[in-house]
Amino acid sequence: MKPIKVGLLGMGTVGSGTFNVLKRNQEEIQRRAGRGIEITMVADLDVARAQALVGEGVQVVGDARAVIANPEIDIVIELIGGYGIAKALVMEAIAAGKHVVTANKALLAVHGTEIFAAAQAKGVMVAFEAAVAGGIPIIKALREGLTANSIQWVAGIINGTTNFILSEMRDKGLDFGVVLKEAQRLGYAEADPTFDIEGVDAAHKVTLMSAIAFGIPVQFDKAYVEGITKLGAADIKYAEQLGYRIKLLGITKRTAQGIELRVHPSLVPTQRLIANVEGAMNAVMVQGDAVGTTLYYGKGAGSEPTASAVIADLVDITRLHTADPLNRVPHLAFQPGAMSNLAVLPMAEVVTSYYLRLRVADQAGVLAKLTGLLADAGISIDAVLQREADQVSQAGENQTDVIILTHDTREGTLNEVLAQMQALPTVMAPIVRIRKEELN
Amino acid sequence: MKPIKVGLLGMGTVGSGTFNVLKRNQEEIQRRAGRGIEITMVADLDVARAQALVGEGVQVVGDARAVIANPEIDIVIELIGGYGIAKALVMEAIAAGKHVVTANKALLAVHGTEIFAAAQAKGVMVAFEAAVAGGIPIIKALREGLTANSIQWVAGIINGTTNFILSEMRDKGLDFGVVLKEAQRLGYAEADPTFDIEGVDAAHKVTLMSAIAFGIPVQFDKAYVEGITKLGAADIKYAEQLGYRIKLLGITKRTAQGIELRVHPSLVPTQRLIANVEGAMNAVMVQGDAVGTTLYYGKGAGSEPTASAVIADLVDITRLHTADPLNRVPHLAFQPGAMSNLAVLPMAEVVTSYYLRLRVADQAGVLAKLTGLLADAGISIDAVLQREADQVSQAGENQTDVIILTHDTREGTLNEVLAQMQALPTVMAPIVRIRKEELN
Repeated sequence: MKPIKVGLLGMGTVGSGTFNVLKRNQEEIQRRAGRGIEITMVADLDVARAQALVGEGVQVVGDARAVIANPEIDIVIELIGGYGIAKALVMEAIAAGKHVVTANKALLAVHGTEIFAAAQAKGVMVAFEAAVAGGIPIIKALREGLTANSIQWVAGIINGTTNFILSEMRDKGLDFGVVLKEAQRLGYAEADPTFDIEGVDAAHKVTLMSAIAFGIPVQFDKAYVEGITKLGAADIKYAEQLGYRIKLLGITKRTAQGIELRVHPSLVPTQRLIANVEGAMNAVMVQGDAVGTTLYYGKGAGSEPTASAVIADLVDITRLHTADPLNRVPHLAFQPGAMSNLAVLPMAEVVTSYYLRLRVADQAGVLAKLTGLLADAGISIDAVLQREADQVSQAGENQTDVIILTHDTREGTLNEVLAQMQALPTVMAPIVRIRKEELN
Repeated sequence: MKPIKVGLLGMGTVGSGTFNVLKRNQEEIQRRAGRGIEITMVADLDVARAQALVGEGVQVVGDARAVIANPEIDIVIELIGGYGIAKALVMEAIAAGKHVVTANKALLAVHGTEIFAAAQAKGVMVAFEAAVAGGIPIIKALREGLTANSIQWVAGIINGTTNFILSEMRDKGLDFGVVLKEAQRLGYAEADPTFDIEGVDAAHKVTLMSAIAFGIPVQFDKAYVEGITKLGAADIKYAEQLGYRIKLLGITKRTAQGIELRVHPSLVPTQRLIANVEGAMNAVMVQGDAVGTTLYYGKGAGSEPTASAVIADLVDITRLHTADPLNRVPHLAFQPGAMSNLAVLPMAEVVTSYYLRLRVADQAGVLAKLTGLLADAGISIDAVLQREADQVSQAGENQTDVIILTHDTREGTLNEVLAQMQALPTVMAPIVRIRKEELN
């Protein structure tokens, strides 16, 4: 059988990794796929640089549309990124009857519904294993490996930059700003790290996992997104003393009321494997009703790990593109006509547990007042850590930290209590609130 | 489209789990698969008991051949186990043109080559996700998710019974025999635990993973198999002091000389995630040249976790059975005509590192003699731990433990040195040798 021909848009880090891995392992990949897979055309704005990377045998053009227009190309890999030109090119490739492989989580999390519908109508596949957790085959696990299960929740460390920063903060007892600068110096954080540190990148990824896990449309606009920029070394230390580590988790959960979809720093029990995922590594936990808890771990970014996922998609398409579309794996795991209409819950309706740190005047009755407010709202306390008085304020008053771990409660209820606590004259600083996930 | 019809052979723990999960989640599974999947016929020697489990709507027979002979059945699930009648039934089901799903690792590790060839010739699939690591979709990850990679090695905790025993030995400082009895009482070990504790079950599983990872035939007879029955609490404690845990690992590795295929207790650095997999849980690490190190974790046994894998295979077959056989995923990941002829290495040719514990007379020059023998053979030492003299022998002589960690060496070379050491008059007891894997 003659090789399947692939056009590659964007010869950046992942693009060159994909080209190199496919070339290095071409014999082994062909022995698996039963057919050769060749990148025969590449589009990049810097034609000369791209040509130098791929060598003379491959046609390099500056105009991505020339790749899409090439009738010999069966599959288009989109590695440009972003919502702009990338979206137009993906839609045009679909319209031209090409299968598409993309690592573009932002594009799919925001415009996935439109893109998947167009692909479905045209009878082509849009594959996106590389969009979530790099080389870890988590999309395949969720969409095929765990297909017997009613999935209960998914929780993952799905942004390497923030996990690197949190690992360093804990290891070295440093604050966020210092570690961010180090991460930028080492190449773990970009010059503009906003999408990573504010949780947006993780929210793109968990939005895609949520859709696949529960059969709902991609709804990035409904995700709750909170980053790690406000985390201090003190909270990481207190959490450690209480038996927890702080990780930025993307979480999606099925409840009787609807779907939870949220990204925020979370306390996780130290004995969980995921609490021990350090540096820039990623890990995703999936809880299914039959299988129980499973975990998938690996590199979540980088040239060749991401290329590993891109090429796995190429092989899948090579295998399935001659098959009846009805026999393919649906884009969002569920058949297009059988999606769920479960709504994404507003954050106030989410039920979870909390770590609270309050800077209080070291006076008799303060703790009783605080715990009384929680009790009045029906919120149970799991643990309290009260520090010795450690600082004398300008008014000559002793201050101390009180840490409270709550049991599960509705976030809206907790917000009301936090407002009451904050208004107390004995509460001397903004209350720190970090969510806590037991993940069992 | 009318439902695909499934016949189930063997209504034991996994059989009833499969029936129950398929029934409980039938609506959700159909929404994914695009087609209903129904177990319409069950064979079990205890017809009355099986009928009570499945209810009146399902036909229950005592003769498995009646299921295979039923022209309405598309897929046969074999959950009988063992090499005997199970093999005959699987071969007959294939001959009858049925697709087969099995959890029978023993059968496939020993007779896989014959079975897969028959299936290939007949154009049917034999799916076996449930045969390795229960509900963890490791077969799918190796065969599809990591298909871009030249896989370097696979190492896994793939037997829950032995991992439970090792976890308890470490936790409670108890010896093997005591913990085995406890495991049997709790249902983690069978009345005859030989296959588990002697490493045979793990060897069946790693044999299958080896074939898939490297495209070689299944060759259980070439596997090196060593169980955990000789492990003592002392070695677990010493390993801990040196920064290691002892796990029973199934390991397969590609080297320039050939394929390593082995099961034995192994020291693993405590900071590796896999060293922290406790109790009856399973985990498999896979190292690929592009993706780097990945890990897959979950329940490796039990009714519903194993059912999760059986049903995932049912869905895969439901999707692919109308497709051209050339477009399906090959049984052993590589196309039947493109398998490798890399040989499995004898254990003497394996290169790894070692933990040695020697009971020696507490005399001057003993350590120099031991390390001299290693140096003469070109074996480097990584660490030495010498204990205070702790016991006076009957001859009135002080004895002590010397622990030596070596760097990588050929096992055949080490064996020669061990024979020399054992012959020394100052070595007072059989030398304990445990292999050590850095897994990085």
